[in-house]
Amino acid sequence: MSSDIGKLYLIPTTLGDNEPLEVLPISVKKVIERVDHFIVENEKSARRFIKKITPKKAQPSLKINVLDKFTSALESQNYLNACEQGYDVGLLSEAGVPAIADPGANIVLQAHQKGIRVVPLVGPSSIVLAMMSSGLNGQNFAFNGYIPIDKIQRKKKIKEMERLSQSLNQSQIFIETPYRNDKLLADLLATLSPNTMLCVAADITLSVEYIKTMTVKAWKNEKERLHKRPCIFIIHKL
Amino acid sequence: MSSDIGKLYLIPTTLGDNEPLEVLPISVKKVIERVDHFIVENEKSARRFIKKITPKKAQPSLKINVLDKFTSALESQNYLNACEQGYDVGLLSEAGVPAIADPGANIVLQAHQKGIRVVPLVGPSSIVLAMMSSGLNGQNFAFNGYIPIDKIQRKKKIKEMERLSQSLNQSQIFIETPYRNDKLLADLLATLSPNTMLCVAADITLSVEYIKTMTVKAWKNEKERLHKRPCIFIIHKL
Repeated sequence: MSSDIGKLYLIPTTLGDNEPLEVLPISVKKVIERVDHFIVENEKSARRFIKKITPKKAQPSLKINVLDKFTSALESQNYLNACEQGYDVGLLSEAGVPAIADPGANIVLQAHQKGIRVVPLVGPSSIVLAMMSSGLNGQNFAFNGYIPIDKIQRKKKIKEMERLSQSLNQSQIFIETPYRNDKLLADLLATLSPNTMLCVAADITLSVEYIKTMTVKAWKNEKERLHKRPCIFIIHKL
Repeated sequence: MSSDIGKLYLIPTTLGDNEPLEVLPISVKKVIERVDHFIVENEKSARRFIKKITPKKAQPSLKINVLDKFTSALESQNYLNACEQGYDVGLLSEAGVPAIADPGANIVLQAHQKGIRVVPLVGPSSIVLAMMSSGLNGQNFAFNGYIPIDKIQRKKKIKEMERLSQSLNQSQIFIETPYRNDKLLADLLATLSPNTMLCVAADITLSVEYIKTMTVKAWKNEKERLHKRPCIFIIHKL
């Protein structure tokens, strides 16, 4: 492995429209200041974020490759060529940390296979911030990604996670597309046992942050609207 | 719920002896500057960290309660009284984020039960930094905590995690007491299938950071020593 090969920086972003340096350490700004090659999920919002955290950085010279769920493995195969030419590359997520619950992991694996050093930077992971804040078991937990939409599949998955949380003593974390959050909450309350613990964490790190852990029974009296607010759900049957 | 009740801040620390503001956003410093009540795992290292991030803060006036694995539920029951008296309280981990893989979760749950607002701050979670950096499936993963020491139990757990990683397409994360890391790596290489993917992430965020993902077969030729280095292990059988 050549010593003048570039590195792959994993660069977190904010979870909403707050001040980047309130939720990101200064090292994130420093890396963005000196990197010109980026792999991003959405070019427009990535440029907006780069502009916000490094207002003086020249944008026209940036080399940006888009990696979203429509990007084929074949296309993304050349995205790390810049590293091999000696340039550092930054992988940016749409919100929060890259390569968790987004399409970035494949690029990271490619980096390992090519002998490119992978350097993770610290930033807000809504999954971890919710898990910390839930008060539920943080010694054993699983992130399940998106919950199925199909009614029967969804009910089955909710029941299965509830069962696993009890049998493995493992907190079960999951997410939904934000405009369906209220529907998901209703489905959870209709499906889970009254004594199962449920944490809902919405708008994490934002001024309207809302984080609450209660029994399913107590949730039935709660009136908070979750519509279109980014949310993490965690359940644990004790 | 009274509006002059204090909040419970979940305050992350560094993962080693690096500069706090390289891995923590400025908001962590701001919160520590104005909070005087802390719940910590180890008083000495907590004071050292507070001194490092806020050198001008008066230490004698701090009110510190210790919460470690020996603290009984009865003892910790009064730790949030300060919130009820209107003071903000900070929960600090020994390394990284509180209430994940440490005894803090119980205090957080108490806060929810008492109607105290829980506010998580961003910082380094070695679990998430390792997961992001592994290139393994970040859409579905489980953190299993410490792996059993007993030889038969350990082998069984390793096999079970390998099976789950394949059947659920779920990356399996686990840790070991750092002085036994080399032994664990040897056990993993002796137990897992040659094609199973293994990520080892050591000394995350430190200058000697080492993160590598390879097949078990390729690991057999790797000579990196992991002794006493904080490590995260992740496996995934494809």
